[in-house]
Amino acid sequence: MAEEALFTSQQLCEYVTDLFRDRLPFNRLLGLQISQFDGEGVEVRLPWDDKLMGNPIQKILHGGVTASVLDTVGGLMAILHVVRDLREVSLEDFHRKLSKIGTIDMRIDYLRPGKGSEFIATASVIRKGSRVAVCRMELHNQDGEHIAFGTGTYMVG
Amino acid sequence: MAEEALFTSQQLCEYVTDLFRDRLPFNRLLGLQISQFDGEGVEVRLPWDDKLMGNPIQKILHGGVTASVLDTVGGLMAILHVVRDLREVSLEDFHRKLSKIGTIDMRIDYLRPGKGSEFIATASVIRKGSRVAVCRMELHNQDGEHIAFGTGTYMVG
Amino acid sequence: MAEEALFTSQQLCEYVTDLFRDRLPFNRLLGLQISQFDGEGVEVRLPWDDKLMGNPIQKILHGGVTASVLDTVGGLMAILHVVRDLREVSLEDFHRKLSKIGTIDMRIDYLRPGKGSEFIATASVIRKGSRVAVCRMELHNQDGEHIAFGTGTYMVG
Amino acid sequence: MAEEALFTSQQLCEYVTDLFRDRLPFNRLLGLQISQFDGEGVEVRLPWDDKLMGNPIQKILHGGVTASVLDTVGGLMAILHVVRDLREVSLEDFHRKLSKIGTIDMRIDYLRPGKGSEFIATASVIRKGSRVAVCRMELHNQDGEHIAFGTGTYMVG
Repeated sequence: MAEEALFTSQQLCEYVTDLFRDRLPFNRLLGLQISQFDGEGVEVRLPWDDKLMGNPIQKILHGGVTASVLDTVGGLMAILHVVRDLREVSLEDFHRKLSKIGTIDMRIDYLRPGKGSEFIATASVIRKGSRVAVCRMELHNQDGEHIAFGTGTYMVG
Repeated sequence: MAEEALFTSQQLCEYVTDLFRDRLPFNRLLGLQISQFDGEGVEVRLPWDDKLMGNPIQKILHGGVTASVLDTVGGLMAILHVVRDLREVSLEDFHRKLSKIGTIDMRIDYLRPGKGSEFIATASVIRKGSRVAVCRMELHNQDGEHIAFGTGTYMVG
Repeated sequence: MAEEALFTSQQLCEYVTDLFRDRLPFNRLLGLQISQFDGEGVEVRLPWDDKLMGNPIQKILHGGVTASVLDTVGGLMAILHVVRDLREVSLEDFHRKLSKIGTIDMRIDYLRPGKGSEFIATASVIRKGSRVAVCRMELHNQDGEHIAFGTGTYMVG
Repeated sequence: MAEEALFTSQQLCEYVTDLFRDRLPFNRLLGLQISQFDGEGVEVRLPWDDKLMGNPIQKILHGGVTASVLDTVGGLMAILHVVRDLREVSLEDFHRKLSKIGTIDMRIDYLRPGKGSEFIATASVIRKGSRVAVCRMELHNQDGEHIAFGTGTYMVG
C-alpha cells in the first residue's frame, strides 16, 4: 500500500487486525485472536493451552495471562475509539496516532478461577476524551462464566 | 520428602522456589527467574526476549508481561508473608495454605516504556493481615530505570 | 431492643438504615440519605449543597465527595451481602460481624464533572466471598448522567 | 492583581495556597489546611474532628475523608507539577491551565483504621507527562502511623 493513500475507518480496522495478528510477538505466544474489531466493537479470544497455566494443581490461567488479555482488548478498544473519529487519513498519520496510544494504568478484579476451554474478552469505553480514554473490560469463559473485570486508562492523543 | 515431615520457614522458601521454577508453565514461558525468596525479601528477574514484545516498532515489553511479572512477585511476597509466620508445618498443611492464596485485585501504573536487557521486580507488604495482604511491587530495568508500579490485594488465609 | 432477641434479615436491614441515619456523623455532614437498603439492593442519594463544591468556578462536586458516596454505597452493599445470609442473629453477634466489615481498597473512575441537583449511587457485588467481597458502584445525577464508577474490595468476615 | 501581570512559579504557589484556603467550600468543611506548597513539595494537614467519623463505635475517619484528603494532596501535586515548569505567566493563562487539571482515576489502599489527633498527607509524582501525571499519596497520623496509600491519575494539560 502506498503510504500516501488515504484510508477510511473500515480500512484502518482491517489494517489494525492484520498488524495485531502478524506483528505482535507476545500476542502470538499467548495464542490471542481478534475475533471482532469493527464499528460495532472489539472481541478477543484465547483458547486454553497448558502453557498458560499459573497453577498446575488447579489448572487455571496465570493471573498475568488474564491481565494480558484484558490489557489487549482494552488497548484495542482505545484504538477503535480513535479510529472511529477518523475520516480519511494516510498510513503515516495513522502510525503517528498509534504510537501515542498506550496504557497509563489498569485495574484487574479477579472474580473466579480462570478455568475453561476458551476465553472471550470484550471492552467498552466509559470515558471518551481526545487525549485520555478509560475502558472497562470483561473476561468470560466459553460457558459465560465471568472470570475477571478490568478497568484501563489509556493515552490516546 | 515424606508428607509427615515438618518444615521450617527456610525449608518452605526452598520448596516454593523449586515449585515456582519447575511447575509453573507460564512463568517458564516468560523466562521468569526467582533471584531471591528468603527471610529478607523477594526478587524476580526477567531477561529480555523478542517474544515478549508488545510493540515491534518500539521494541518494548507487552503491558501484559509487565502485569505478569508484577503479579508474580506480589504473589510470592504474599506467600512469604504467610511462610514467615510458620514455625513447623507439614507439607500437606502448607499445600492447604498455598491453595488459599490468590490475587483479588491488582493495579498497574505504567511509568515508562518497558525497554531493557533485563527487568528486576521487587515487592513489599503494605497491609499485613491474616486473611488479606496488600503488596506494592516495582519493576526496574538493568539500569535502574523505573518501568512500572503495582499494587495487589491478595487472599492469604 | 433486648440484645438477646433474634433478628431476621429484614429487621437487620431496618436496623442498619437507622444506624446509618443517626450514628454516622460524616454522612450527616454530607447530607447522604439511604433511599433503599433491602433484599432488592442499595441506593444512596445526595442532594446538591454548595458546601460540597470542590471547584467554585465550575460548581462541581469535590472528588472526595464522589469517593465518599461511592465508598458508602459500596460498604452498604458489602453489609447487605452479609445480612442476606443471616437467618436469625442476636444484635451482639451482628455487631461483631459489622465490626469486621471495612474497605480494603477502592478505585474511582471520574467520568464527567459532578454537576447536578441530586446524585444517586447504586452498587452490586461482583465477587461474593465469605471473607472478602468486591463491589462495583455507580454515581449518576438526577438526569441519569453517569458521573463516576467505583470498584471496592471489602473485608466482610 | 492586574490580570496582565506576569507571575513567577513562587507567586503562583502563593496564589494557589490562597485559592485553596478561601475558595474551596468542601476543604473548609473538612478543615483541611495546606501546610506546604512550594518548590520542595506539598503537604496537607487535617485535625481530627468528631464530624469526620465514619464509625462512631471505633472513632475512626470515614473512608471518604481519607479519600478526600488523598485526592486533594494528589491534585495539588499535579498542580505543582504544572506550576514548576512555568516561568512567567499571566493569571488568565494560569486559570486556563488550572481548569484543565482534574482527577481521571484514583486508587486508595486503606492500611490501618484512621485514628489520631491530626493527619498528614504528602504526595509525589511518579509519571511526569505534559498531558497526564500520576501521583502517589500517603496519609499518616501525628505519630507517624501509616493510615493509607493513594495512587491518582490526573489530567494536567
